[in-house]
Amino acid sequence: MNFKLKNDTFLRALLRQPTEYTPLWMMRQAGRYLPEYRATRKEAGSFLGLCKNPNYATEVTLQPLERFPLDAAILFSDILTIPDAMGLGLYFSEGEGPKFERPLRSAAEILALRPADTDKDLRYVTDAVSQIRKALDGSVPLIGFSGSPFTLSCYMVEGGGSDDYAKVKTLMYNEPKLMHHILEVTTQSVINYLNAQIEAGAQAVMIFDSWGGVLSHAAFHEFSLPYTQRIVDGLIKEKDGVRIPSIVFTKGGGLWIESIANIGCDAVGLDWTMDIGIARQKVGHKVALQGNLDPVVLFASPDAIRNEVEKVLGSYGYGSGHVFNLGHGISQHTNPEHAAALVQAVHELSRKYH
Amino acid sequence: MNFKLKNDTFLRALLRQPTEYTPLWMMRQAGRYLPEYRATRKEAGSFLGLCKNPNYATEVTLQPLERFPLDAAILFSDILTIPDAMGLGLYFSEGEGPKFERPLRSAAEILALRPADTDKDLRYVTDAVSQIRKALDGSVPLIGFSGSPFTLSCYMVEGGGSDDYAKVKTLMYNEPKLMHHILEVTTQSVINYLNAQIEAGAQAVMIFDSWGGVLSHAAFHEFSLPYTQRIVDGLIKEKDGVRIPSIVFTKGGGLWIESIANIGCDAVGLDWTMDIGIARQKVGHKVALQGNLDPVVLFASPDAIRNEVEKVLGSYGYGSGHVFNLGHGISQHTNPEHAAALVQAVHELSRKYH
Repeated sequence: MNFKLKNDTFLRALLRQPTEYTPLWMMRQAGRYLPEYRATRKEAGSFLGLCKNPNYATEVTLQPLERFPLDAAILFSDILTIPDAMGLGLYFSEGEGPKFERPLRSAAEILALRPADTDKDLRYVTDAVSQIRKALDGSVPLIGFSGSPFTLSCYMVEGGGSDDYAKVKTLMYNEPKLMHHILEVTTQSVINYLNAQIEAGAQAVMIFDSWGGVLSHAAFHEFSLPYTQRIVDGLIKEKDGVRIPSIVFTKGGGLWIESIANIGCDAVGLDWTMDIGIARQKVGHKVALQGNLDPVVLFASPDAIRNEVEKVLGSYGYGSGHVFNLGHGISQHTNPEHAAALVQAVHELSRKYH
Repeated sequence: MNFKLKNDTFLRALLRQPTEYTPLWMMRQAGRYLPEYRATRKEAGSFLGLCKNPNYATEVTLQPLERFPLDAAILFSDILTIPDAMGLGLYFSEGEGPKFERPLRSAAEILALRPADTDKDLRYVTDAVSQIRKALDGSVPLIGFSGSPFTLSCYMVEGGGSDDYAKVKTLMYNEPKLMHHILEVTTQSVINYLNAQIEAGAQAVMIFDSWGGVLSHAAFHEFSLPYTQRIVDGLIKEKDGVRIPSIVFTKGGGLWIESIANIGCDAVGLDWTMDIGIARQKVGHKVALQGNLDPVVLFASPDAIRNEVEKVLGSYGYGSGHVFNLGHGISQHTNPEHAAALVQAVHELSRKYH
């Protein structure tokens, strides 16, 4: 395997080392906005069919890189593979998103929860990682990822998405010990899972705390962040002499950026609500920042996109430590030509800041 | 009319004058979680039937006060009365929330927009205010309210609720002048509307920027906050020698609390994500704070509710300037007895802080 990357701009930016321009990738860059993705998905029969077949997962992971000169690839998978491997029975109902056949509904079910057997039940993910890494052939780094324990617990207790997170929050307020038990077991699974991805070839890892932002300040610092911190602590930090950087993204977590930046991760992902320059002032030299263009900007004209890209770059300012990204996953309704305009704008406009 | 209030704790707290305990009311306190509300709504035939009939509006406004010793009443109405009066044709489709028959879809429609004729088309609201004020008979103050221009514009452009605000944001990024035109016309309407409510008897007013939090930092400070500021500037400040305090609530606006506190309002509403003690440090003595218990806490046991109430009170700390509230409207699935437990806990536990 070739350990020398042709383009390691992304990894250098995460480690706040000098780069020639601001690297970028887009959350959900392999996705429904691409016609070639929709074709592969059709062939695979379903979203889970894509995730669970390393050939398909490799194919769709590479699709956006064939279109756009992105600076990183991200494993094509879903955050809910872990609870699925824990026996909850993940399925996708058209138009309603992910669901579990056996959500956690009783204390007995919660106490019976066991960590996922990564080697056995998540082998399809690590196989995909190895295969994608090989297919990338050193072009750009590969990002592995997982959901955060709190975010996974939300789905495990709610049984699917939710508007108000009433079930999981009620459990959290009424039975904090049971909630902590779910979080404990899930944390152990995430550590094993991310380390298995690193062993298989992931060159950076990202933890998605997609729902941490629905918590109160006190609840976030009790039920979400400490578990993310334990994951960061438990990660393999270096492979073959190369640092494996970690990125923590809490959607709606701008208010807590200082505590998030303090848990030992290399970078913090930002949604689009926080000004990235203010975020940089708050975290100082502690971490790199990843973000944070509103994905809806891609619905506007290429000129407007360019204008908004310049605002984000200008707000971050001079020097390394910025990985450009959207503040949330790219919408399925995005015109791929607008994504191309974004990539071009970031690469062109960012040079003057380096 | 009796201008002497039996309980003016709420108004004193908004003006940061000493009180004996922390006053509270609950956003959406007159609502579906109350069986008596559901009965009146059934009789009225629809939600709009309640809003547009001052007798019904008075009846449901008073219902929560008959159950709980709340410290304020809030006009029963909807934020979308203004765009309705501007001719967009508000209706409610069961389970899908508010919609407009004639959303703004073209530049011509936007440029044809005229401010609402408050005296004529919103007379039913000011009539309700007068009637409620009379019915309250000086027991507690009456709050009037409006949506913020940005929030109203979201609905006017989207035609209803939205997950991603793609239409309104695309307009904003592609055609900022058209967006500003909608905001201008709406701002003028809101000023007239709130002043008419004050003339009719509202003793405090609240501006709900329910969707401001979906914007980027830059967009919030261009398309939402300046218009809210112009409204605050244009409000009647005093009536019959008594100050009419204003409260500005931006859901998801914690990141911008310092700029919100700077626009001349008397109080800032907080959702549950920001620690209220940190918020207090940031705003200093500039404004009072209203909030901020996660409404989902009311699904937990009365003991857990008490525990979380104590956390919010303790975080705010000693002295006046806090109006207790939920961080968002009370859920329709709330057990009214749990709302009673909240009210009791706030009144009991807050005395030691005064």
